[in-house]
Amino acid sequence: MDSDFHCMTVVSERLLKDDIIELMKEEGAKGFSITDSVGEGSRGVHASDWEGRNVKIESIVHDETAKRILKRIADHYFEDYAVIAYTYPVTVVREQKFK
Amino acid sequence: MDSDFHCMTVVSERLLKDDIIELMKEEGAKGFSITDSVGEGSRGVHASDWEGRNVKIESIVHDETAKRILKRIADHYFEDYAVIAYTYPVTVVREQKFK
Amino acid sequence: MDSDFHCMTVVSERLLKDDIIELMKEEGAKGFSITDSVGEGSRGVHASDWEGRNVKIESIVHDETAKRILKRIADHYFEDYAVIAYTYPVTVVREQKFK
Repeated sequence: MDSDFHCMTVVSERLLKDDIIELMKEEGAKGFSITDSVGEGSRGVHASDWEGRNVKIESIVHDETAKRILKRIADHYFEDYAVIAYTYPVTVVREQKFK
Repeated sequence: MDSDFHCMTVVSERLLKDDIIELMKEEGAKGFSITDSVGEGSRGVHASDWEGRNVKIESIVHDETAKRILKRIADHYFEDYAVIAYTYPVTVVREQKFK
Repeated sequence: MDSDFHCMTVVSERLLKDDIIELMKEEGAKGFSITDSVGEGSRGVHASDWEGRNVKIESIVHDETAKRILKRIADHYFEDYAVIAYTYPVTVVREQKFK
């Protein structure tokens, strides 16, 4: 088992989905699990964007990759979009799949 | 980056969604991501409530907020409803958004 | 509150859902939350299986149970199927519900 991996999670309006996946791929993420969700409550600059239909993007990545993705998403989206990004350590088996 | 945040997660029958969000707001949660899910297996007092259409409510909150929400949900719902609640630490950027 | 629990998470093609839940039950998991998701990106041997409609299975289990499930899923599925499995510690209340 291997604990140097993180689940990188991004919740955003659906319009940004492809852009965010592209950004994550550039930083080394390989596979993505995408779930529809609904946002409630104001969070961020565009409350009206956050409310309503959102998408949750998850990818298992190396911890260093997670840090880079988190920083780039903050730099690119937090000013103008209602994007939530967080990461947490997970234990996986067969790390080679995520490299 | 900031690590004093938690992802507070509640899985319940859909009927309780608004009540649980209200409780979480009272304790300081600001934004919510809501996902439809399906429950299988018996867990808790009302297995028949748990099986079937559920809702998963997630909110990024301060660790102290997570503790309060966890305790209140246990006190209010665990006796009579099939509610699962758990929390785990996450790393975020720009903590001010969640305050 | 109790911290000896993990959220065991498995993402797979939908065809495997019942098999994976059965395996998890054999190892002691009691309740499951199942969410529809969509896979993007190649990850694992059958990229074509991973892309498209997936299912995310989550269960709150004891940490030892999570380790056993993780190992068995790796042994049974990783060779031939596009399955992602990971586990992370969570804090819960009223541990008896998950026993």
